[in-house]
Amino acid sequence: MAWYQVKGNNEDTVISSRIRFARNLQGYPFGKGLSPEKANEIISMIEQALEGLDFLKTDMNALSPTAARALAEQHLISPNFAAATGPRALFRADGKSLSLMALEEDHIRLQCILPGLSLYDAYRLAAACDDRLDEKLPIAFDEELGYLTRCPTNLGTGMRASVMLFLPALTDAGYIPSLAEQLAKLGLTMRGTFGEGSAAHGALYQISNQVTLGVSEEDILHKLTETVENIIGKERRLRKAVTGEAALLREDRISRAEGTLRYARRLTSEELFSLYRDLKQGIALGIVTDITSETLNALLIAAMPAMLTEHSGEHPQTPAARDALRAKFIKQALEVKTHE
Amino acid sequence: MAWYQVKGNNEDTVISSRIRFARNLQGYPFGKGLSPEKANEIISMIEQALEGLDFLKTDMNALSPTAARALAEQHLISPNFAAATGPRALFRADGKSLSLMALEEDHIRLQCILPGLSLYDAYRLAAACDDRLDEKLPIAFDEELGYLTRCPTNLGTGMRASVMLFLPALTDAGYIPSLAEQLAKLGLTMRGTFGEGSAAHGALYQISNQVTLGVSEEDILHKLTETVENIIGKERRLRKAVTGEAALLREDRISRAEGTLRYARRLTSEELFSLYRDLKQGIALGIVTDITSETLNALLIAAMPAMLTEHSGEHPQTPAARDALRAKFIKQALEVKTHE
Repeated sequence: MAWYQVKGNNEDTVISSRIRFARNLQGYPFGKGLSPEKANEIISMIEQALEGLDFLKTDMNALSPTAARALAEQHLISPNFAAATGPRALFRADGKSLSLMALEEDHIRLQCILPGLSLYDAYRLAAACDDRLDEKLPIAFDEELGYLTRCPTNLGTGMRASVMLFLPALTDAGYIPSLAEQLAKLGLTMRGTFGEGSAAHGALYQISNQVTLGVSEEDILHKLTETVENIIGKERRLRKAVTGEAALLREDRISRAEGTLRYARRLTSEELFSLYRDLKQGIALGIVTDITSETLNALLIAAMPAMLTEHSGEHPQTPAARDALRAKFIKQALEVKTHE
Repeated sequence: MAWYQVKGNNEDTVISSRIRFARNLQGYPFGKGLSPEKANEIISMIEQALEGLDFLKTDMNALSPTAARALAEQHLISPNFAAATGPRALFRADGKSLSLMALEEDHIRLQCILPGLSLYDAYRLAAACDDRLDEKLPIAFDEELGYLTRCPTNLGTGMRASVMLFLPALTDAGYIPSLAEQLAKLGLTMRGTFGEGSAAHGALYQISNQVTLGVSEEDILHKLTETVENIIGKERRLRKAVTGEAALLREDRISRAEGTLRYARRLTSEELFSLYRDLKQGIALGIVTDITSETLNALLIAAMPAMLTEHSGEHPQTPAARDALRAKFIKQALEVKTHE
């Protein structure tokens, strides 16, 4: 099961938590100066270092562009890594929670992604793997600068911690811009994630640490967790503050969204984000009772363009055909779920 | 079973056929000059004349205003008759197909309404009852003017034949105004029916004969049936002419309408007409498969304001509350139908 198919904690407001480490090997150029031979050498070294940890290796050049994009849509690799050329490999373990991109921007990008607010768990999983890498590989490290990375913004811990949040009430109330400002003062960045339109239509945001140098990993985890808990509280209070006539209108809108999700024969991804937003709230409010939060998350990811093509085997040639395929897939997936 | 709960022929385009006879009794004033005593005398005479024909008598003054309006919403009586005061009675037989309003505009308004294009059947049923009235009562008749009626537009046969049609494609194509003009030249009238918004939102129209004097009943039936068959053909050809991308968009719109009908928690009657229009087409086109045409007709009537109150026992005090009650009723009715 992938992270997005599993029930997480705080599922009404938190989609996922992610820890990512950037690492490089001593004695090899960082970035463009690396020859294909040296690149393959690095991939082999990583493969050997991971031996016994049940990692599955994927040669990215053996994948179709669509299969590569589908991995990015599942947040297992970066879109850049999917689109790149040249020697590069993906290693996956623990039901896809742990993944390691060899030769993305850095030689090693190790990430752990888990559902819900689980930064510490994700950190423990990623750090255990990182310890192995440290032990087996000549990881580039400087007493003063910490882990050395291609881009200076990653120096120090080389760690980026991020949480993907679902904030429809804060969005509706217009609080996102000021929230982003407050976060910036704390050294945190807030941005739309999950591709275009996800913030505006889906109310999905990613919050992550901006600073990696001069702070400890523990500081980063603590500050981000505390801040996210604070935001969760605000979002929940705002949702509850909707009462009376406005709550009835919200209920009608949400229930209609379920009807549209189940009955539409064409769905753009923008509309899907917007339905997701209503239904995700509806599940939390008890208005939508026959779809679970994790089913909805899984649907959203499975209905992304490359994912759609990957599991249907169909290659829609026009946006209209893709929208029809998306609607058909969702209808079928929900019918299966409802009859389970 | 009422007429609207039964499957009719040509159900893709025809809702119902109706025959109505206007009759009056010799020796009694037509209209306002009638005293309450004389009015009650007429009601008794009618009751006796109908004896043995299994008519059920309803004293209209014994009904609540809502119950009276609910009868009008089922097209069993006229809205004027529902709203009137003074002695008046309704007689019903044959599962509500036959109904007789005593002391509407005329002393007697006898109607037969049947689903589908069934003018001749409706005529036979109404005429058989009319024969009994002719036999038992001193019906006012003039050799030259035919049946005498309060309003001169009903003189002659005293018969009004009408067909309720569902014409979404002709409406969408903008053909209704020119069709109405052509019908006027044939002595036929076309008008929206089923209350406000039914033409604009529901594409529902009633076509009836304008002239009652100097034409035979047979002529009226023949001309109206022929004309309606002609219109049905035009409507069907236009629906079939929608192909390719436009047909796919129509399919999406229709299927979404089913989702909205099933999931909305508030429905105005205007929106219900509009959903009816999409779903009725969807049933004919095979896009909507788990709702029948007669279920949809019955829903539309059962969701009218007075009908809603009558069968729910609830008296919504605001438009919003009524819209919520309408949505709840429809959801439940469809769930029952789907599980049958």
